[in-house]
Amino acid sequence: MAGGRGERFWPQSRLARPKHLLPIVGDRPMLTQTIERLGDLVPPENVFIITNVEQRDAVLECCPSVPPANVVAEPVGRDTAAAVGLAAVLVADKNAGAAFAMLPADHVIHDHAAFQRDLDAAFAAAEGSDALVTVGIQPTYPATGYGYIRRGEEADRAGEKPVYTVDAFKEKPDDATAREYVDAGGYYWNAGMFFWRVPVIADCFARFTPDLWKALQAVADGLREGEDLGPLLEKHYPSLEKISVDYAIMEKAEAVRVLESSFDWDDVGEWPAVARHNELDDEGNAVKGAAMVHKGSGNIVIGSGKRLLAVLGTEDLIVIETEDATLVCPKDKAQEIKALVKRVGEHPDWKRLV
Amino acid sequence: MAGGRGERFWPQSRLARPKHLLPIVGDRPMLTQTIERLGDLVPPENVFIITNVEQRDAVLECCPSVPPANVVAEPVGRDTAAAVGLAAVLVADKNAGAAFAMLPADHVIHDHAAFQRDLDAAFAAAEGSDALVTVGIQPTYPATGYGYIRRGEEADRAGEKPVYTVDAFKEKPDDATAREYVDAGGYYWNAGMFFWRVPVIADCFARFTPDLWKALQAVADGLREGEDLGPLLEKHYPSLEKISVDYAIMEKAEAVRVLESSFDWDDVGEWPAVARHNELDDEGNAVKGAAMVHKGSGNIVIGSGKRLLAVLGTEDLIVIETEDATLVCPKDKAQEIKALVKRVGEHPDWKRLV
Repeated sequence: MAGGRGERFWPQSRLARPKHLLPIVGDRPMLTQTIERLGDLVPPENVFIITNVEQRDAVLECCPSVPPANVVAEPVGRDTAAAVGLAAVLVADKNAGAAFAMLPADHVIHDHAAFQRDLDAAFAAAEGSDALVTVGIQPTYPATGYGYIRRGEEADRAGEKPVYTVDAFKEKPDDATAREYVDAGGYYWNAGMFFWRVPVIADCFARFTPDLWKALQAVADGLREGEDLGPLLEKHYPSLEKISVDYAIMEKAEAVRVLESSFDWDDVGEWPAVARHNELDDEGNAVKGAAMVHKGSGNIVIGSGKRLLAVLGTEDLIVIETEDATLVCPKDKAQEIKALVKRVGEHPDWKRLV
Repeated sequence: MAGGRGERFWPQSRLARPKHLLPIVGDRPMLTQTIERLGDLVPPENVFIITNVEQRDAVLECCPSVPPANVVAEPVGRDTAAAVGLAAVLVADKNAGAAFAMLPADHVIHDHAAFQRDLDAAFAAAEGSDALVTVGIQPTYPATGYGYIRRGEEADRAGEKPVYTVDAFKEKPDDATAREYVDAGGYYWNAGMFFWRVPVIADCFARFTPDLWKALQAVADGLREGEDLGPLLEKHYPSLEKISVDYAIMEKAEAVRVLESSFDWDDVGEWPAVARHNELDDEGNAVKGAAMVHKGSGNIVIGSGKRLLAVLGTEDLIVIETEDATLVCPKDKAQEIKALVKRVGEHPDWKRLV
């Protein structure tokens, strides 16, 4: 899944160039890293990328190993349930009994070997059952920014890994609740990584979101009759309900299983998270590009190129320069960047910058 | 006097483009405004500008009314006593009995009429006496960044204005002392505006700094013999003592007089002072150029042109963007910009930016 709008990483990200198309962490786009992270587990011809029309060219450019026909552009955004349903249709068109994984395109995971082992186990769990399988991330702190999964009892094993039933999906908690979850144990972060067989997820869609599924079956029928995907999506996609796969399917399904992650994970949701993945100087500044910090600490300072970005005496400030825009913002105000981008987009001189 | 190095207003100012060559306040260079402020009081052919070789071209460009021969470049900086002595030599070469004024080139004064009235009175006081005359600025707050002048008794009148003796020149005071000065009354800020007749200041130089004066007399002799000023300065200027006119002359002279200013005055010594002369938005932000502040207050934000400078949620921050450099610095750290510029100058990639 590589869609969405680029707001939180403005000014590097733009509406048509969100985080997964940028090297927010590392030196290649996050999507490129996501594909490479799969290693030999999934051959490139079996990778589908669901993006949108504005981003399709950029996606093709940063994923040369994936066949262009597998880079599918939604004509309009319809949240994750529609994207998952479309994925099921696309995979079914190749192999109606196949298991497939849904993976976000913009997360940071350094330990590729552990990631591939866990994915292998999750695929095995999905292939050997009628369950919806997810990999839950072991929490490293009481985060309030993620949904949680409360595991139940051990239902099965996939190789050496226990496969647990899921007691409940929990909304993003407040601080105290997050602490309870982490202290109690048996809670995982919901990273939106799902594994299932086509018939299993198709059955869920048919039962829980019949209208959405009916519209997507029209797409499937068209494909079988040799119609082109683009016009089919333009015809049927706009009518789809906007709903997340978590609400539409995961929270309603009876047979849901969770495996515990053994890899590092970070969704790097906003600028302050970037510092966790950069080398810091002695004062805890993350400095990249043509930039310097003099007598400051805890800053994230990213220069754009030939211009010099000089930061003096500040603490915990985000300063990001690109060719055509500069952002200055305290770390603890990063969640308001969306509102800033909205205002930039409303200004006649600057709307080109969003 | 239009020399000095541009450090405190970096990145707009550069070594060869200091504050007086920039529109730090207003829309024309401070030096241009200084010349224009004289109005009809001093005809342009009687204005000399003492600058340095690096800045001479820029000075000529921003002062088209002043004859190019009157724009004199020091080959090396030798502080203000040398510049004043050179001015005396240049004026004497035209009129050995004339009175002249020494004025800084980079101060902000809005009330031109009052300024011209006070200068007229100061000229009258200098022309009718053997005194060194200064105009003292009425303090508006207990500033610790300026030297003070304690006036004595009324010695004379120039038109309607009292002319006072000077009891003492006081160094920049600490906070408590500054308060005492302002509470006591009879103290003025020393703005470095001096008025005297050539024979009077020449006598002081001869008595208080005989070596410096002797070297400058060699320049005067050369001029009388038809030699060019440039080579004369290159020969004699480097040997001059580096000392301020305040230390060398004003604090030692017996006959010093002060008139009280009736105009507004601000030396605008560093970025935070700029906000005093700009229109502020409802949150007290001074925003100029292609820039916006969202949910921030008390910031000084100056964009450079086509790029957007977007500041979110900060307080009392200075953000200055130019074509090739950006500065981010809290207002209360502005005095450290010099140290930052030094560090920029030491970096091989960026020394071109100082």
